[in-house]
Amino acid sequence: MQSPALPHERLSEWLSDDMARVNALIRGRMVSEHAPRIPEVTAHLIEAGGKRIRPMLTLAAARLCGYEGENHIRLAATVEFIHTATLLHDDVVDESAQRRGRPTANLLWDNKSSVLVGDYLFARAFQLMVATENLRVLDILSNAAAIIAEGEVLQLSAAQNLATDEAVYMQVIRGKTAALFSAATESGAVISGADAAHVEALFAYGEALGICFQIVDDFLDYGGAGDAIGKDLGDDFRERKLTLPVIRAVAQADADERAFWERTIAKGQQGDGDLERAIAILRRHGTLASTRDTALHWAAVARDSLAVLPDHPLRTMLSDLADYIVARVN
Amino acid sequence: MQSPALPHERLSEWLSDDMARVNALIRGRMVSEHAPRIPEVTAHLIEAGGKRIRPMLTLAAARLCGYEGENHIRLAATVEFIHTATLLHDDVVDESAQRRGRPTANLLWDNKSSVLVGDYLFARAFQLMVATENLRVLDILSNAAAIIAEGEVLQLSAAQNLATDEAVYMQVIRGKTAALFSAATESGAVISGADAAHVEALFAYGEALGICFQIVDDFLDYGGAGDAIGKDLGDDFRERKLTLPVIRAVAQADADERAFWERTIAKGQQGDGDLERAIAILRRHGTLASTRDTALHWAAVARDSLAVLPDHPLRTMLSDLADYIVARVN
Repeated sequence: MQSPALPHERLSEWLSDDMARVNALIRGRMVSEHAPRIPEVTAHLIEAGGKRIRPMLTLAAARLCGYEGENHIRLAATVEFIHTATLLHDDVVDESAQRRGRPTANLLWDNKSSVLVGDYLFARAFQLMVATENLRVLDILSNAAAIIAEGEVLQLSAAQNLATDEAVYMQVIRGKTAALFSAATESGAVISGADAAHVEALFAYGEALGICFQIVDDFLDYGGAGDAIGKDLGDDFRERKLTLPVIRAVAQADADERAFWERTIAKGQQGDGDLERAIAILRRHGTLASTRDTALHWAAVARDSLAVLPDHPLRTMLSDLADYIVARVN
Repeated sequence: MQSPALPHERLSEWLSDDMARVNALIRGRMVSEHAPRIPEVTAHLIEAGGKRIRPMLTLAAARLCGYEGENHIRLAATVEFIHTATLLHDDVVDESAQRRGRPTANLLWDNKSSVLVGDYLFARAFQLMVATENLRVLDILSNAAAIIAEGEVLQLSAAQNLATDEAVYMQVIRGKTAALFSAATESGAVISGADAAHVEALFAYGEALGICFQIVDDFLDYGGAGDAIGKDLGDDFRERKLTLPVIRAVAQADADERAFWERTIAKGQQGDGDLERAIAILRRHGTLASTRDTALHWAAVARDSLAVLPDHPLRTMLSDLADYIVARVN
């Protein structure tokens, strides 16, 4: 059998037995005897064919560190539950209509279900991590949950605010995205009893990969094709989020452009042709290109972090995964 | 100095040193370096002068079991954070305008802040409980969090549904209210290393007290005075919740009354005078009186649960607290 070409597919194949157990655990824990609404809402999301990158990172980190126990399965399911809970709450906050190319749960059911089922998944995540009985892992994951929520709140107050700078942007994406990636890889290493240098390397890899992933996502919202990314092009523009390409364009804006950003982002007065004009301004200042460069930088940081780890097929796949994520911007 | 008369005031006085430390810990953990919106939203709720019954239950259970360590402070703050997070999300779900006699956070800020700051408080709660390094307590509290969320989702699907019976109602209130009361008392006992009979007794007390508390609340929504309860009379009616007095009245409804409940609760078509008519129907069937009797039953269960515990001023206060809670219905 020929090896599949894409790194997340190779990871998925290498980890297929583990992933099958993670999926079975997730399905088992979604069930609620008393509230059938819960599996309806979560199945919609969890079966929607996300790439399961976060739980794969946990499994890969654990296996790369030679782990042979059971707890990496629980941790991987924990990470996916936290991610799914976050998606449910994000869609309420963003008033999104589409996620992974399908209508969002808040549109199919209502915001109430999304809020409460999200809470249920958070609680399920904590039950699963407690079952590992590993206090260091509990510390890592409960800290990550707080950092994620803090990043989301910070994003909310930074939205619509043209004074948002790159430092605030990095703070937001470290919170809302990179914290879970790094907790996924770090907890996989810690549960394996890996030594400090390897734990640190896998933390650094996860963090850089998460930062890269989010910058790519923010690039694609202006520079991608809607169909290919499974969400609507221009979502961030409509939600008036200050992402990296916009922050850099605002910093270089002339008076006309400044007035344009004031109207569309600060005041939220948007009409036909405004998204196209925004994209034209980003292109004119080269901020899509420079955002791609920043993403490439973080992909390199991710790859370099792996250097101290032993030579292993999983190490190669993780390294290739960083390249693959950033390749989406080309 | 004369001893204050009301049991929660006596508890508050007896536990005042501990409560001061809990309050300091809560204030410290609300701070967010990066997201000032967080302490704004939470301070509004946490400083709003709730009676802090849940954290007092944890402290009282621990002290009653002779605890002399530090972890009961963390657990009490955990319980209050979970409670506050739940309130923030409830207000979004219920679209409430008033809580504890003040405008709700979702009205002062927006639903987005309430959702995300609630998530932050949940995460803070988990960090605090992890800091106790007691796996049994982590198990109790993470299970409680899942049961709470499940109860909330169940309540959502039971609302507007006239087929909701007393068994479903009990399931809902065990989840949304009693699970945190019982986790508060049980975790206080467990952290103290109390023996199994005392842990069980304090669990049973907390559960019965929580059930009693919620039944009283549901009674007061039809039978209380709006000013005295710090929320609007008839909130449950407007939100089309099937609470105990209504469930019992629906079960005894004649054809006219059945049509009334169909229109107001199932279809949500409510106009002037409907709340008054609902109250008149409840009175006619005596379901407010029978709801009070059920509350009195659970207060007795709570008191009786304390019998196996050693004679102690705190035991008396907890027993009196059950009487005090149910006295609100008279």
